[in-house]
Formats: sequence, structure tokens, C-alpha cells
Amino acid sequence: MEFLRDNANVIALAVSGLGLLFALYRMRWVLTQDAGNERMQKIALAIQKGAQAFLRREYRAVSILVVVVSVVLVALSFIPGSRMSAWTAVAFVAGALASGVAGYVGMYTAVRANVRTAQAASKSLNGGLRVAFTSGTVMGTIVVSLALLGVSGLFILFSNLLPPLEAVSALAGFGFGGTSIAIFARVGGGIYTKAADVGADLVGKTEAGIPEDDPRNPATIADNVGDNVGDVAGMGSDLFESYASSIIAAITLAALGSGLSPDKTLVGQVFPILVAAVGLIIGIGSTFLVTTKEGATQEMLLGSLRRGVYGASLLVAAAVVVLGLIFDLGWGVILATLSGLVGGVLIGYFTEYFTADSYSPTRALSISAQGGAGIVVIRGMALGMFSTVAPVLIVVIVTLLATAASGLYGVAVAAVGMLATLGITLATDAYGPVADNAGGIAEMARMDKTVRQRTDALDSLGNTTAATGKGFAIGSAAMTALALNAAFITALQGANGSGLNILMIDVLDARFITGLFLGAVLPYLFSALAMLAVGRAAQEIVKEVRRQFSEISGILEGVAEPDYERCVGISTDSAIRQMILPGIIAVVTPVALAFLAVVGRDNVIGQFVGTNTLVGMLIGALVSAFMLAVMMANAGGAWDNAKKYIEAGNYGGKGSDAHKAAVVGDTVGDPFKDTAGPSLNILLKLLAIVALVIAPLLANTPLV
Amino acid sequence: MEFLRDNANVIALAVSGLGLLFALYRMRWVLTQDAGNERMQKIALAIQKGAQAFLRREYRAVSILVVVVSVVLVALSFIPGSRMSAWTAVAFVAGALASGVAGYVGMYTAVRANVRTAQAASKSLNGGLRVAFTSGTVMGTIVVSLALLGVSGLFILFSNLLPPLEAVSALAGFGFGGTSIAIFARVGGGIYTKAADVGADLVGKTEAGIPEDDPRNPATIADNVGDNVGDVAGMGSDLFESYASSIIAAITLAALGSGLSPDKTLVGQVFPILVAAVGLIIGIGSTFLVTTKEGATQEMLLGSLRRGVYGASLLVAAAVVVLGLIFDLGWGVILATLSGLVGGVLIGYFTEYFTADSYSPTRALSISAQGGAGIVVIRGMALGMFSTVAPVLIVVIVTLLATAASGLYGVAVAAVGMLATLGITLATDAYGPVADNAGGIAEMARMDKTVRQRTDALDSLGNTTAATGKGFAIGSAAMTALALNAAFITALQGANGSGLNILMIDVLDARFITGLFLGAVLPYLFSALAMLAVGRAAQEIVKEVRRQFSEISGILEGVAEPDYERCVGISTDSAIRQMILPGIIAVVTPVALAFLAVVGRDNVIGQFVGTNTLVGMLIGALVSAFMLAVMMANAGGAWDNAKKYIEAGNYGGKGSDAHKAAVVGDTVGDPFKDTAGPSLNILLKLLAIVALVIAPLLANTPLV
Repeated sequence: MEFLRDNANVIALAVSGLGLLFALYRMRWVLTQDAGNERMQKIALAIQKGAQAFLRREYRAVSILVVVVSVVLVALSFIPGSRMSAWTAVAFVAGALASGVAGYVGMYTAVRANVRTAQAASKSLNGGLRVAFTSGTVMGTIVVSLALLGVSGLFILFSNLLPPLEAVSALAGFGFGGTSIAIFARVGGGIYTKAADVGADLVGKTEAGIPEDDPRNPATIADNVGDNVGDVAGMGSDLFESYASSIIAAITLAALGSGLSPDKTLVGQVFPILVAAVGLIIGIGSTFLVTTKEGATQEMLLGSLRRGVYGASLLVAAAVVVLGLIFDLGWGVILATLSGLVGGVLIGYFTEYFTADSYSPTRALSISAQGGAGIVVIRGMALGMFSTVAPVLIVVIVTLLATAASGLYGVAVAAVGMLATLGITLATDAYGPVADNAGGIAEMARMDKTVRQRTDALDSLGNTTAATGKGFAIGSAAMTALALNAAFITALQGANGSGLNILMIDVLDARFITGLFLGAVLPYLFSALAMLAVGRAAQEIVKEVRRQFSEISGILEGVAEPDYERCVGISTDSAIRQMILPGIIAVVTPVALAFLAVVGRDNVIGQFVGTNTLVGMLIGALVSAFMLAVMMANAGGAWDNAKKYIEAGNYGGKGSDAHKAAVVGDTVGDPFKDTAGPSLNILLKLLAIVALVIAPLLANTPLV
Repeated sequence: MEFLRDNANVIALAVSGLGLLFALYRMRWVLTQDAGNERMQKIALAIQKGAQAFLRREYRAVSILVVVVSVVLVALSFIPGSRMSAWTAVAFVAGALASGVAGYVGMYTAVRANVRTAQAASKSLNGGLRVAFTSGTVMGTIVVSLALLGVSGLFILFSNLLPPLEAVSALAGFGFGGTSIAIFARVGGGIYTKAADVGADLVGKTEAGIPEDDPRNPATIADNVGDNVGDVAGMGSDLFESYASSIIAAITLAALGSGLSPDKTLVGQVFPILVAAVGLIIGIGSTFLVTTKEGATQEMLLGSLRRGVYGASLLVAAAVVVLGLIFDLGWGVILATLSGLVGGVLIGYFTEYFTADSYSPTRALSISAQGGAGIVVIRGMALGMFSTVAPVLIVVIVTLLATAASGLYGVAVAAVGMLATLGITLATDAYGPVADNAGGIAEMARMDKTVRQRTDALDSLGNTTAATGKGFAIGSAAMTALALNAAFITALQGANGSGLNILMIDVLDARFITGLFLGAVLPYLFSALAMLAVGRAAQEIVKEVRRQFSEISGILEGVAEPDYERCVGISTDSAIRQMILPGIIAVVTPVALAFLAVVGRDNVIGQFVGTNTLVGMLIGALVSAFMLAVMMANAGGAWDNAKKYIEAGNYGGKGSDAHKAAVVGDTVGDPFKDTAGPSLNILLKLLAIVALVIAPLLANTPLV
């Protein structure tokens, strides 16, 4: 036990290294697969170039942000009396770098796995599944490995260099760095992916009358790139941050002694790191449980993915019990961690229940499509609103149990538990767009019909896992944000030297109420901006496609090649330009409130803004964003699947009035589930982590 | 000053009596107007009968509820140690009766004013405006008079009979009684009105191909009845409760000494009553400012209504200053009251900005309709979300100013100030459906085209005032709920004998967080149920209309008369049946949490539920419901007007693709703005008033 405790970070470093090696090994395996004929490779190359172009521009923009923020962080540490450490900036850069590399490698693999999946699917279904899922495994493993590497490495460094408060606040910089990538990849990527999708459809299907994934459409490559940008890089960076931040929150709470007896302070910091390390190894092992055989039904395919996820969950649960007992942390901590693990699985289940066409909610939505577009939209909104109840109850029960079992520390380890199986969960998730792209390539390269059937089966499975993954991402974001808020408020107390572990606030204080309202309105503002951005970016693509159709003669006849790259470039630029405003709002709000709280210490400003305003804002945003995100994600997922259910031949099938109505629902749902909804995950974590990073600045500010 | 103070309630009683007389006098005037020819009267009679039928069934259902709740209230007062008074039940019955009578008289007048408006409009535009607006005046005046009568009368009674805490908690019973009517009229009415509308359209316009308001459609009378049910009785009962409750909250806070120096306790209770009384008189006077001349443009019509509302606001502001100075309450109280008054006007302005087609947001929405139904729905959602920012900022600024100026009492008088001009605001609001109905009657009775043009002008004006009225209703509901929450928490402190005026809560306590999440999810659940109910009730109407078309031969040829009454009966029953579940949820949630908090005092339940859960729930619901309600009301209003703007000949006009897309937006918006959105006003006030009523039961329960 003492060996484990004293060497936990070294062990975690070693495990991360192992994970990285495994990721590289699986990546190599993917790259050595047959990449198909020349035509396929040409299409794949266009997607690769497009993805590369997006990442290049994103990273260029992000690097400006990273430099600016780093300078600000260093400057803040030099304010007289500031207890922020300049090391925060180092952690920040490391977090951005780690998340950036993870996204790059994951995308690099995914856009090469797509064509290889198509080729393997021309031989067998299992072959296709293996290539696509292995590509997902690379993403899942590298995200987890780099996050763990960063947290454990910096923890070794900071705990030797800095006093506890400064150390944990600097460590939070790593999560902040991850978010700065996430906001570009998830928000910018979300705008990009839907703008390309909508733009391609509007001008291609509607105006030119050519089918989806047709190589004559100049925006078709942008659309394919978008799948990877949103669901591989975006989802990966989102969960990178949840994963890193939940561990950081647990370490912070343990270090500041919240919810643990004083003699457990040290093991309390070690426990979440080891849970993550064990989870990483188990995640790697359980990827081998995912196989299927030829002619597998949808249920069998889903079953094989579930085997992986559930198997990993069971093993991690056992490991949590063992680790808890070894460290003598008591059943409270064990129970708290397990409640998070179970909660994550349950949220995934309910998400599936509300969005999969095998259950009654989505079936009823399909039926309602017969009543017309208006009815199906109303019904879908009602479904989305109704579906918020289950995840809220799950989060609430997990929080109540975890807190009763081991205080605020319990909430943080519950988040760690929920995310402990991230390696495999993310693998099932990142697999989807690869299968989707494979289908697109099969179509564009005019491959045999059986290939498209097989990739369609894989893709349809990907839609289910994508919906579940979104539910999981929101749920874990909420738990992480709650843990970060707890860490922030605890740090605040530490900074104030009040020695309290709770923050008593007058709930009727107008400044607190103001904070709640401001926090609650932020997700609405953020979503509105994201949805408007999709519309604007799509318009730019439409304009460009129209220009190409009219200026480059022979495109529609298939003799001249469209300029794919320009479409990619235009939607990339537009997406990145339009995520700046929401991004700034998210970063500036907590900083501005903190600034006003400090400035207003001794004057009239203090009557209107206080630290309680900042606290209220964090809580208001958490609650409001969670509801809105679940509603949008589930309504979007249900509309998508209701449309597909009709396309499968129900209620009139493709081309019927019901189908046309369902298409409207799906159009509304796209920015809901792929842009605005996921963006809110980033928003709520960003607000919380920024607050934690600047917590030491609020030293000596009255708390109420 | 002493005379005023000691006789304030008597003065208020006298003013209420005067108001009632004025309402009756104006009602008589309306009834003496020319009711048109036989055909017109026949149609009007059908609407009158339908409205009567709805109210009869509603009041039958409500009376069961009133009896049950009264028994429960009396029983609660007999619990050993309970500090609830059995008088609460008396106040409850009085509140239900007063709100019920106000609704009945308002509806009675409105469904008789419609045909008289049509007849008057056949002579002149100003004549039509006068009849319709006078009918609105009856509703506005009677609501305000009966509310003030009840509050001041019961206040005299209870302050002589009971100790302060028991007295104010019993007084809250009056507000609770009002809500029990409101939940039927606003939620049930909201379901009714949209079900009838959608049902009539679905089967009439779409299947049978007959135009709107065609007498051959069996559901057309139900549709016309619905306008009155939702926008006259529903809106009236909603604001009756806000009005009564804001005064009660102010009295409670003054009586329990929150935010006022001890020597001001008595005048503090008198001040809100006198502000309301003066507001009532000013409201009556300013109705005479509303006139117009023949050939008036839309701007001139709107101008004449505005003259009334703004004129009243200015006079009330002056009266507030005078009363504040007479009572020597200080500029703090005056400023707080005025901030509410100004806030209400501003919320109305921003609502108009986001929903009227003369401003850019709705114009842009019309333009986006050219992109198809999906695009217009996305854009409308984004508009609705974006539009939450301004009302939130207004509420926040009013709250901050009012609190800084005079504590929690300031928040309550701000709500009183916001509602002080209710008489005239409600008159402009209740006028809309009368004009709308007049147009329907003109159509059905095949009156001259100029009549329909004039009623259309009046109706279009009504749409603008209806949107503004909805914004005002939400804003004042939020302020009222905030004031009620403040009163509840203060009463809780009084009940606990802690002598504190603030409630310090550990914001990270999982029970408080649980409450916040539960409260935040309630509006989503409530809205989902309301929207699903509309769909179900509409289906029943469709079935009935189809049955009549097939079983009663000659309907479509116009020779046989459809059975209007059955359609009214079916949608009434369906609406009332389906509002029971959401109604129960709203009442049971606070009661159940309070019960668990009391029961869990000394055992393990207390680890999971406490008084802080109840407090968290109230705050969470307030914040969440406010956002959602504003979003739905404004998106709905903007879709409606975007459609009308296209119908006016823009972007292709009626029948174009853009118009078809805009119709989908309007269909989605209907249950948003007329059912789910307004229902949330009731939800948040109901939660707050129930909590205030049962506050004395929570005596001796630990607060955190």
C-alpha cells in the first residue's frame, strides 16, 4: 500500500506511456490495412487534405489564444499579493498541447481508417468493424493516455515545487489548456460540420438534384471532413477535458482536505490517479472483446460493442473496490466512485431509450410525422424536454449518494468513476464517423452494393453509439463541472484562510440571484449564437458551390473536377471566425465577475457584484446548460432516427409526406445535437475551470 | 398621513368597490351596443354557449379541487404544534371565488362584445376599437378590483384576528386560491385553445379544403371560444394571481420586518395596498385616452393604446413618489417601486422588439423562411433563445436596484410597481381576442369586405399587444415569484424564531443542489406534458370533425348544421383531463419536499432532503422557468408575425414556398406561446405560493 501510494504518479506515468505505445501500435495496424483501389484512395486523400486543412487553421487560431492566455496567466501571478503561480501557464500550454496532439493523431487515423474500412467491408462485415473500431480505439486510448500523462506528470512537478493551494490551482491550468482546444474543436467543429452538411444538402440535393455523397458536389468532401471534425476531434477534446478536470478536481479537494479525514489527504490524491490508470489498462484490454461475425444483425453488432463497454465497467468496479480497500479509504469513497460509474452507464441507457427507434418515444415521433412538419417538430421538442427528467434524477442521486458517502470529495471521485472507462466509451464513439465516411467513400467510388450495405449497418450502429456518447458526454460534463465548482469554492476558502469547507451564502442576496440568472442565460445566448453561426456559414458554402457550378463548366456532367479544398477552406474560416464571440463570452464572464468582486471590495460596486455573484453564475450555468444540452441532444437524436425509421419503409417510407416532415425534424435536430448541445458541455466546464484557475486571486475578498 | 395609514384598507375597499361599479357600468355599455343582424347573433350565440360550456365544466372541476384543498388546509391547521391558521382555507376559497368571478364576467363580456365589435366596425374603425377595448377594460378593471378587494378585506380581518406570521400565511391562501383557478384557466385553457385551433385547421383547411373561420367546420366555434378561454380568462387569472400575490408578498415582508426599519413596519404594509388602489383609479382614468379616428394606420392604432399605457405609467410613478414621501418611507422604497414599474415597461418593449415585424429580428426570420421549414424553425429557436438576454438583464437590474434601495421588501414593492398599471395593461391585452372573434364573425356572417378589413386592422394590433402582454405576464410572474420566495424564506425564519432575515445556506450542500436541479427540470417536464396534451386533444377533435362530416350529410354543402357544441365539449373535457397531471406535479412537489424535510428531521432521510432542498427547488424552478417561458413566448410570437409578414405579400406572399415554411414555424410556435410558455408563469407562482402557505409547518425544522 505504501509503495502504491508513494509511487502512484510514477505508475500512472508508466501506464500512460504504455497506453501511448498501444495507441501507436493500433494506429500502425490500421495504416497497414489495404487502402483499396486508386479511385478510393483519391477520394480518401481529398478528405485527408480537408481534415488537415481544418486542423491547421484551427491550431493556428488556437495558438494565438494560447499565447495570449499564457501571457495573461503569467501576468496575473505577478500581481502583488497574488497566490497564483506562473507554473499555471506551463500547465496551460501542456494541456493545450496534449489535447491538440490527441485530436491530431485521432483525426489522422480516422481519415485514413475510413477508406480502409470500406475496403475491408468489401470482404466481410467483421473486417469492416475491426478496422473502424480499431481507429476509434486509437482515439480513445490516446486521449486517456495523454490526459493521464499530463495530470500525473505535472502533479509530481507541482507538489514538489509549490504549496498545496498554488499547486492545485496551477494543475487546473492543464484542464484549462484542454478546454481551449475543446472550444475550437467542439464549438468551431460543431459549426463547421453542420454548416458543411446543411450547405451541401441545400445546394446539392435541393438545387442541383444530385444525391448525397455525390463527388460532383464541391461541398461533399467538406461534409465528410465535418463528420471527423465534430465527432472525432470535437468529442475527443470534450472528453479529454472532462477526464483531466475530474481528476484535477478530486486531487484539489483531497489536497485541501474536503470530505476526507486528515490522515487520508495523501491517499485521497493518489486514489483518483490510480483509478484512472487501472481504467486505462482495462479499457485497452476490453477493446479485444469487440468482434462480430459475418451476417451479424444490428442487435449482434450493438451487443459486441456493449460487451466491451459493460465488461470494462465491471472490471473497473472491481478495481475501485480493491484500490479503496488497499488504501483503507473506507466504503464511503468506494461507494461514491461506483455511484458515478453506474450513473454514467444509466445515463447512456436512458439516452438510448429516448433516441433509438427500437423504443416507443422515437417510434411515436415517427408516427407523428404523418401529421406534418409542425407536429413532428412539436412532438420532438416535447420528447427532448421530457427526456431531461431521467438524467437529472441520475445526476441528483449520484450527487446525494456521493456526498452522503464522502462529502465533496465524493462528488469528484464519482466524476472520476464515471469517466474511468472513457478509453473504450470514446472508442465506440469515434468509430461512428469512420463507418459513416466509409459509406460515403463506397458511394463516391461506386463500389459494390454489398459494401454499402455493410457500411450502412456499421454506420447505423454508429448513430446509436453517437447518441449514447452524447448523453454520456453531457452527464460527465455536468458531474465534472459540479466537482470543479466544489473545488473552486473549497479553494476559495483556502485562499481566504477561513479554514471552512463549506460556503454559506445568503440565497436571497440579490448578488447571488443575479449570478444565478446570468449563469442561466449564458447557455441560451451561447446556443443562439452557435445556431445562427451554422446558418451563416452554410450560406457561404452555398454561395461557393453555386459559383463553382456556374464558373467551372463540366462539373455536373462529371467531366471537370470541383474545387473541394476551397469549400473546406471557406467553411473552416467561417466556423472559426464565428466561434470567437461565444468563446470570448465564456472566458470573459467568470474573469469579469471575479475582477468586479475584487475591485468592489471596499466601494459601491460591492453592493452589486460579489464573490457570491460568481458562485451563483457557476451554479446557474451548470443547471441551465445541463437541461438545455440534454433536451437538444435527445430531441436531435430522436428526429434523426425517426427519419431513418421512416426511410426503412415505415409510414410511407422515403419520399412520402411523413418522410418530408421527418426531414424537417432532422434538419432542426442537426444543429441541436451536433452544434449547440455539445457546445454547452464546453461552456459549463470552461466557466468552472476558469474560476478554479483564478481562485487564488480572490484571496481576501469577502465571501458573501 | 396617519389618516391614510389607519384607513388604508378601508380606502382600498372603497376604491375596489368603485372599480367594480365602473366595470359593471362599462359592461352595461357594451351590452347596449347594436348586436347586428340575426345571422351574426346566431354565430355569436354559439360562441357564447361554447364559452359558457367551457367555464361550467372548468368550474365544476375546480370546485372539487377547492373543496379538497380547503379540507387539507383546515386539517393542516389542526396538526399539533402547527402555526397554520384554519383561516387560510377561508382565504383560499375567497381567492378562488374572486378569480373565478373575474374570469366569468370578463368572458361573459368578451363573447358578447365580439359581435358588437363587428357591427360597430361596419360603421367605423373607431367604433370597433371602442367596443373591443371597452370589453377589455371590463376584464382589466374587474380583475384588479376583485384582487384588491380580497387582499384588503382579508387583511383587515386577519390582522385583527391573528398574530403576524399566522396572518400573512393565511393571507397567502388568497393568492393560492387565485392560482387554483389560474392553473385551470391558463394551463387547461392553453391546451383547449391550441387543440381547437390545430384540430380545426388539420381537418378543415388540410383535409376538407375549406378556409379558416368557415361555418361548415364543426370545430370553428370551438376555435373561436378558445381565443377567449386562453387570452381572456387565462391571461386574466394569471395576472389576478401575480397582482394579488405581489401585494401579499410585500405585506408579508413588511409585517415580518424585512428590509424596513422597525418604525416603518406598519406603513410598509399599507404602502403597497395604496399604490395598488391609486393604480386602479389611474388605470380607469387612462382608458379614456384610448381613441382613434377613421382611416388610422397601424401605427396610429398602436399609438392610441400606448397613450393609455404610458400615460397610466407616468401618473402611477408620480403617485408612488407622493405616497412614499407622505409615509416618509424614504427614497429607497420609492426607487424600488419605480424600478419595477420601469422594468415592466422595458420588458414589454423588448418583447415587441423581438416579435413585431417592424423590427429586424422578425424580418430576418421571414427572410429565412425562403430556406425552408427546417431553417425557419432553427432560426426562430435561435431568436427565442437570444431574446432571453434582455428580460433577464432587466429582472436582474431591477432586483439589484430594489434590494440595494430597500432590501427584500424592495423586491416585493418592485413587483407591486410593475403590476400597478395592470388595469390598463390587461385591457389592451383582453381586447385582442374580441377583435379576433369579431373578424371571425364578420367572415362567417359574410359581412361586407370593409368590415373584415377593419377588424383585421384591430386584430393585427391585438397580436402585437398580445405578445407584449405575454412578456409582461412572464416578467411580472418572475418578480412576483421572487418576492414570494423572499416572503417564504423570511416567514420560515419567523416560524423558526431565529430572528434572522437572511437564510444562509451551504450552496454546495448536495440537498440544495438537488433542489436546484429538481426545480430546474420541472418546467421542462411541465412544458413537455402541456405540448403532448395539445397533440392528444387535437386528435380527439379531428376524430369528431371527421365523424360529423361522414355522419351528418350536407354539412360540406352548407345545408345541414354541424354540431358545434359537441366539439366544444370534447376539447373541454380533453383539456381539463390532461391538465390534472401537470397540476398535481406543481402542487405536490413543494408539499412533498416540505413533508420530507419535516419527517427527516431526526433520521437518515434528513441526509437527503432538507428545507434547503425546498429552497433550492423554488430558486431552480424560478430561474429555469423564466428562461424557457421567455424563449417559447418570443419564438412563438416571432413565427406568428413572420408568417403574417409573408402573407402581407413579402418574399412570395401567401401560397409561396416561403409561406409554407413560415406556416410550419407558426404551427410549432402556437403551443409554445399559447400553451407551454404561459403555463410556466402559473407553475413558478404556484410553487412559490404553496411554499409560503405551508411555511408555518416548517417551524423547528433545521434550515440547512
